[in-house]
Amino acid sequence: MLLLHPPIAPWLVRTETGCRVTLLTDQPALQAVWLRVLPDNEEYLLPMKAAGRAGALHAWTGEMPWDGGNPATLYSFEVLAGDSQRWLGADGLHPHVPPEAQHFRVVRELPPAWVRDQVFYQVFPDRFALGDSPPNRDGETVYGSRPQAAQQLEWGAPLDPAQAANSFYGGDLDGLRAKLGHLQQAVGATAVYLNPVFTSGSNHRYDTEDYDNVDPALGGNAALERLSAAMHSRGMRLVLDAVLNHTSTNHPWFNRWGRHEGVGADQSDASPWRQWYAFNDAGHPIYWKGHDSLPVLDFSHAALREAVYEGPDAIVKKWLRAPYSIDGWRLDVIHMLGEGRGARNNAHHVRQIRQAIKSEQPSAYMLGEHFSEATRWLQGDQEDASMNYYGFAQPLWAWLAGQDVNGHPAALSTLQFEAWLNRARSAIGYDTALVQFNLLGSHDTPRFLTRLAGNHAKARLGMTLLFAYPGVPCLYYGDEVGMEGGADPDCRRCMDWTGASWDRELLAHVKRLATLRRERREWRDGAFQVLAQGEHWLAFARYTAQAVSIVVVNRGPAIEVQLPLKALPVEVSEWRDADGAPLTARSATLSLTLPAESGRVLVS
Amino acid sequence: MLLLHPPIAPWLVRTETGCRVTLLTDQPALQAVWLRVLPDNEEYLLPMKAAGRAGALHAWTGEMPWDGGNPATLYSFEVLAGDSQRWLGADGLHPHVPPEAQHFRVVRELPPAWVRDQVFYQVFPDRFALGDSPPNRDGETVYGSRPQAAQQLEWGAPLDPAQAANSFYGGDLDGLRAKLGHLQQAVGATAVYLNPVFTSGSNHRYDTEDYDNVDPALGGNAALERLSAAMHSRGMRLVLDAVLNHTSTNHPWFNRWGRHEGVGADQSDASPWRQWYAFNDAGHPIYWKGHDSLPVLDFSHAALREAVYEGPDAIVKKWLRAPYSIDGWRLDVIHMLGEGRGARNNAHHVRQIRQAIKSEQPSAYMLGEHFSEATRWLQGDQEDASMNYYGFAQPLWAWLAGQDVNGHPAALSTLQFEAWLNRARSAIGYDTALVQFNLLGSHDTPRFLTRLAGNHAKARLGMTLLFAYPGVPCLYYGDEVGMEGGADPDCRRCMDWTGASWDRELLAHVKRLATLRRERREWRDGAFQVLAQGEHWLAFARYTAQAVSIVVVNRGPAIEVQLPLKALPVEVSEWRDADGAPLTARSATLSLTLPAESGRVLVS
Repeated sequence: MLLLHPPIAPWLVRTETGCRVTLLTDQPALQAVWLRVLPDNEEYLLPMKAAGRAGALHAWTGEMPWDGGNPATLYSFEVLAGDSQRWLGADGLHPHVPPEAQHFRVVRELPPAWVRDQVFYQVFPDRFALGDSPPNRDGETVYGSRPQAAQQLEWGAPLDPAQAANSFYGGDLDGLRAKLGHLQQAVGATAVYLNPVFTSGSNHRYDTEDYDNVDPALGGNAALERLSAAMHSRGMRLVLDAVLNHTSTNHPWFNRWGRHEGVGADQSDASPWRQWYAFNDAGHPIYWKGHDSLPVLDFSHAALREAVYEGPDAIVKKWLRAPYSIDGWRLDVIHMLGEGRGARNNAHHVRQIRQAIKSEQPSAYMLGEHFSEATRWLQGDQEDASMNYYGFAQPLWAWLAGQDVNGHPAALSTLQFEAWLNRARSAIGYDTALVQFNLLGSHDTPRFLTRLAGNHAKARLGMTLLFAYPGVPCLYYGDEVGMEGGADPDCRRCMDWTGASWDRELLAHVKRLATLRRERREWRDGAFQVLAQGEHWLAFARYTAQAVSIVVVNRGPAIEVQLPLKALPVEVSEWRDADGAPLTARSATLSLTLPAESGRVLVS
Repeated sequence: MLLLHPPIAPWLVRTETGCRVTLLTDQPALQAVWLRVLPDNEEYLLPMKAAGRAGALHAWTGEMPWDGGNPATLYSFEVLAGDSQRWLGADGLHPHVPPEAQHFRVVRELPPAWVRDQVFYQVFPDRFALGDSPPNRDGETVYGSRPQAAQQLEWGAPLDPAQAANSFYGGDLDGLRAKLGHLQQAVGATAVYLNPVFTSGSNHRYDTEDYDNVDPALGGNAALERLSAAMHSRGMRLVLDAVLNHTSTNHPWFNRWGRHEGVGADQSDASPWRQWYAFNDAGHPIYWKGHDSLPVLDFSHAALREAVYEGPDAIVKKWLRAPYSIDGWRLDVIHMLGEGRGARNNAHHVRQIRQAIKSEQPSAYMLGEHFSEATRWLQGDQEDASMNYYGFAQPLWAWLAGQDVNGHPAALSTLQFEAWLNRARSAIGYDTALVQFNLLGSHDTPRFLTRLAGNHAKARLGMTLLFAYPGVPCLYYGDEVGMEGGADPDCRRCMDWTGASWDRELLAHVKRLATLRRERREWRDGAFQVLAQGEHWLAFARYTAQAVSIVVVNRGPAIEVQLPLKALPVEVSEWRDADGAPLTARSATLSLTLPAESGRVLVS
């Protein structure tokens, strides 16, 4: 018995009072069908009504109310089959009521609509494009446990790993601005996620010294204003990185080095900022994961909350305003933020940060950084999306590179790969899944190509998945041309603007994928459905009611695969390869050949 | 590769700073082993150390800190195996990091220790034992949408279903008190959960009219005082039912019928209690699930919170005090309680209710009523336990009776039955699982024997599972003697004290099981491990480091089963049947025969 519910319109339609949902089946008649809902945490079984044909399938519809007690409205489907039951949850079939975690869910407050249409590009500012800004460090910078010499290096010169954080190459925001045309035209990127830009002692700037000013070494606030204006005039979007869990020891609130006026929290327990930071019983500061450069903020104190998110000019609000008008925030280690010495009451503060951001700019994108599972933060009242390490990058690394997030061997079968993707995707609403921030790597991981031991074919395959899988793709600068690099700091090398090292086949592939994403609405908004899989390959469809794409990814040797199409709720009269060649046959099963380590895309 | 972690001492030892955990394996050597923890929501992999033999198995140990940011501390185990990984989560093995929902979890605040040692007995006061209390209703009672005649019926006389709520048989608390000896001696019960006793218009009393007074028809406060004293002098425990989500329309706060002094919420929007209740935009009260007898309370109002849980004499506090000194609360539809018209901010209020209860009596048992999955309320900061419909009764009904909670056909294979039990049990900490309130039926369901179509053999089998499965068993009055009855109100018939209808074989079986629970610590505190299963049977062990019981339940025809014992971490030199007969053979595999529809218990 096929039971199917694509959680997008027209099979999921939002109304004022709730949603109208459609269940599809290959059975001409069903004994009884209920929609199970849990408004205010209480179970109701609502009978569904037969609603005619939907292509080769049969439809049943039901209406459900919004859950007033929870940010996400949960539902599943029950079908009687003789003396037993079939339930459809977000992850598939169950023999009994699925656990809540496997229910479909629809968030009341939708993520911003513009996000789905983007191709993000992540830039590490010091390493992307050289600019004219003065180093402005007087030869010294404060990072880690002490002030130290700032290393000014030539673009592309080797880095001394012992000076990893205090070596500067001179990339800046004007440098980035000069490359926007390249990003749009050669890469197909439409949005930039920038690693931190606020004044800081290190090149990565996760140790904020001043939340009100862009680092002069990046061009200062004026350069950000120029960048933002240039991007918006090109129709591009800009997301900044907010580090709110901790500050630098050199932030005036903490003022360990006495470089600022006023008495900082580290200097005296009479400091007006003393209670803004977490201290242990002996009066020593609590540091983020023990790094003595990063004292942890304590959100139990009202004045800190006021400064960070509650006040009229709070940090998370002011940069959303003109003239900077950023389009969203990526929130660093947001799951660790909280009261006391750790994450106590984290959910409350993340909800409040959301409210602050949305009150300033309802269409701002609130993106959380989570290396691990982010399910809890993605239920509709906290984040719009997370950096999708858990639900995309990690399974992909395991499937393609046999490695986990910690670099341990982690070979997965395709069945296990698909189950992991499914499990992560089905734990969140599909509107959320469509704005999840998918990535192959970042400034915190080895480069994707390096993880793949330099296998360029697999890199192209990974790119195909990055663009075709539900969620918004983000390219880490240079990955589109096959840049290599091991773990931090090696993954933060300077971009090679000579082009000498570029894999132009990979770049052309990325550009084609970006174009497909722009042209094919189903890649941005469409449902996701697995069609078939083998030991080393996976075939899936992305579709709306109007259009279908089929994507096959093959990590193994050359294959010939048969794809059954009868479970798709949309009938397609003719398929063609995404590069334009029409397929000769039209049938309920597609036969395709794929070379080793390759992907193939068909469109309706 | 066998990987095993029984989440009890000595394999899980709580310390001041965290826990010491032991992983057991059949492999003499492992490549690498990590303990994965998530304090403050951040992942850490802690290397584990080889720690010698544990019976036939090999042990690895690790230490983890308490999670300061969450009420439950989560963990799982990672083992490298060639180029792939094996992870052990609470539900078993995974090929990659398990979802958070499948991590082991240990709650910081333990549920009250006394609960594990109980055999609960649920009493519906009007129907259990006749007493001398005056009906005291003046021939009229207020229930539902109107005052109506109170029907006083002879004990055991037929009930008119149209008068289901306003028919009274005269059972009372003194009547119950007179039966305590029977409960202890004939049944083996040690604790009573009483359906509501506060003054109310109906016989079920879920429509509270006065939270400060036991219904005079049950003997009033004095009778509760006598009952409590009698129970405590026998070493028995008493749990009452609190209905805090809504009141009767005849509560003075609402005062629909003008029977009380003061202006009630229903009478005027100038009432001092107006904001204690939820009203819709047209000014009409919100009723619980539309029942116009039960107006919903709105916990956004401070004065209501003060009366219910915050004030020094709040409802949930006062009955925990002498002279009533009850041992816990069962909280009716607690998941629906909240702000506005529904369950908004439910988790916050349930946490506050917990704090109020525990501040008054740290060892009070806080038990929530949930017909559906209660996982969210069982993570350590809300309830100690739930009425375990979802994780015990529902799978059992499906496996033994082929029925679900709504009476739909719901046949399950034994594999599916076991997977459901496992899934529910592993979503909560094992300390919580050991105090889950397991049941076969209640005042809200058809009688267990009736659900089984009168199959007494299967009723005995269900009792075996009720007593042997992790959690505290609760007998619904009369189920121990094979009382029958369909859905409410038929499941609330008067107890037959003539004994004419009693199944004395079932009663003796229950008494034997209660004795085993008292004598065998592993039934109360022990780990749970599935040993083997077939199409119609399941064999599992309950064990501590000192003692083991093996339980086999067979819903099908007679069988001979082989039980492999090598995966048990405790070595047993000799087995005997629980009724005393020693088994002749001693081996790594036990061979057992079971008649059709029967259970068998072996003990070390």
